[in-house]
Amino acid sequence: MTATPSSLHRVRDTLTPALRAALDRLDEESRRQAAYHFGWIDAAGAPACDGGGKAVRPALALLSAQAAGARPERGLPGAVAVELVHNFSLLHDDLMDGDEQRRHRRTVWSLYGASGAILTGDALLALAQEVLLECGQPTAAAAARLLSRATRELIRGQVQDMSFENRAHVTVAECVEMAAGKTGALLSASAAIGAVLAGAPVTVVDALALYGDQVGIAFQLIDDVLGVWGDPARTGKPVHNDLRTRKKSLPVAYALNQQGTSSVELAAWLSAPDEPDETELRRAADLVEEAGGRTWAVAEATRRLELGEAALRDAALDPAAREELIALGGFIVGRDM
Amino acid sequence: MTATPSSLHRVRDTLTPALRAALDRLDEESRRQAAYHFGWIDAAGAPACDGGGKAVRPALALLSAQAAGARPERGLPGAVAVELVHNFSLLHDDLMDGDEQRRHRRTVWSLYGASGAILTGDALLALAQEVLLECGQPTAAAAARLLSRATRELIRGQVQDMSFENRAHVTVAECVEMAAGKTGALLSASAAIGAVLAGAPVTVVDALALYGDQVGIAFQLIDDVLGVWGDPARTGKPVHNDLRTRKKSLPVAYALNQQGTSSVELAAWLSAPDEPDETELRRAADLVEEAGGRTWAVAEATRRLELGEAALRDAALDPAAREELIALGGFIVGRDM
Repeated sequence: MTATPSSLHRVRDTLTPALRAALDRLDEESRRQAAYHFGWIDAAGAPACDGGGKAVRPALALLSAQAAGARPERGLPGAVAVELVHNFSLLHDDLMDGDEQRRHRRTVWSLYGASGAILTGDALLALAQEVLLECGQPTAAAAARLLSRATRELIRGQVQDMSFENRAHVTVAECVEMAAGKTGALLSASAAIGAVLAGAPVTVVDALALYGDQVGIAFQLIDDVLGVWGDPARTGKPVHNDLRTRKKSLPVAYALNQQGTSSVELAAWLSAPDEPDETELRRAADLVEEAGGRTWAVAEATRRLELGEAALRDAALDPAAREELIALGGFIVGRDM
Repeated sequence: MTATPSSLHRVRDTLTPALRAALDRLDEESRRQAAYHFGWIDAAGAPACDGGGKAVRPALALLSAQAAGARPERGLPGAVAVELVHNFSLLHDDLMDGDEQRRHRRTVWSLYGASGAILTGDALLALAQEVLLECGQPTAAAAARLLSRATRELIRGQVQDMSFENRAHVTVAECVEMAAGKTGALLSASAAIGAVLAGAPVTVVDALALYGDQVGIAFQLIDDVLGVWGDPARTGKPVHNDLRTRKKSLPVAYALNQQGTSSVELAAWLSAPDEPDETELRRAADLVEEAGGRTWAVAEATRRLELGEAALRDAALDPAAREELIALGGFIVGRDM
């Protein structure tokens, strides 16, 4: 297991007060639900410290400003904004997916109802733009534009992901495009937004954006590998979890699109309607592996990450921030890779 | 019935192509659902011309630019953006309210499912900011900021409205605050955004924003009067519709907060759990009227509208645009007032 990068330890001290100040603008009910979602209060409303997620996107945003030669605080409105957009998408996704638990706590919709989750998500999305546009920096509009595009891509990815459930066949390109939207777009915006706020030249912004994109796709590739072969003790999910739902994840899509008997057998199995048993799940995992899905996904993740790192090395970035970005990207992707 | 103002006839020619161009940025599925919602295609995907709503917000936005001495086109990105935010809120509200019909057509959630309505609504909200920020005007950031604040207020109003359903008592002030958020905020932003885009001075922007606010609250007052006493042939809803659901609308809230036996009887009736019959509904409507709810609501709407019109007359606006704004505001509010 990779050690937690220091950028993730540092980000909380800066981010949390700014995030709380932003949420103070919301109506009482949306603020309560958001505070619960972020782990600051429990279901009864008592103060808690469940920490929420790892804040990798805000950490990227602060490093992004530093990479462009500015102080990390310059990226802070961006850090708050990307965290708000990320959590908007979690609130709506949990509802759409019917997930009752997130990080071992009840999800907002399951506790406060569907309307609560819809409205609180909406409020976080609107607030993200407001925080950026009110930060008083002349570069705020460019940052807000970057974020609104990323949000559109994020939504496109989610729409595409849901459409896969109703389709017998998806191509690898479609699957990568989906991951680029659902996971890559906001990580890309996170890695670039600090530099945009700092007024960095377009070559610097583009290199950072490309890095975030590749980190996102690489993360999704490894996450999908873990979804099939991951150790339940580490993933916190049942073994073969993604196969159980017959999800067309990246390694599965790769395997499906190869020639050979494993692919044919896998396609037949995926279109079967019944609940699979453990023997079937093991067999399906073996088929994906035999068709090269696992090897490809790991190699592709490595290739993507190296592509992103190369872009960072070619750009005129602050060297210390560059190394921290590479450490953070490696941490995001490198879950027992 | 007031004649349709010419500003509403004109707005379609400018708005529709710009709105279509904006929606072209969306993924195929969100675009399809949005096109259906706007009445451009039917449920089978065939071209249609159901027109959607009246586009009063875009019309306000174009007049707003003209009022500030600019050409109406200067307000066009604002017109598109406010229409997108309005329709984002309709998509999510219809789902939360469980409404299966809007303007005699099936609602998006009832046709494409809850997830479709959530994601398409999200996409329209994100797109609104994107359209504004990419319009290339130096004033775009200020306009986007205005809109993101209005969106927060709109959501606050919706949250407040839903909270009223679970409360025995609401004050008139709370009810007005709710209407100012749910209806006033976006009309206010619509009336001001064209002037903001045109770079108008703050006194002009403020007068226009105040006008939109007051038109919004006045509209809600009259809409609530029609919800109790409106002619079903004109409102398209059953008589006493808002009483049927025991909604704490503005005239009802006023009546509840008066001294006297009518108020006491009304409060008791509102807290009764059973489905009311026609006799009970007539009695409840009489109680609201006896307690002064109807008279107050109509007088308050008139007062609000005059307040808004006075602000317009005091500001340095283009005289022709000012008269058109007053005609449009009167049309929005004046449904058999």
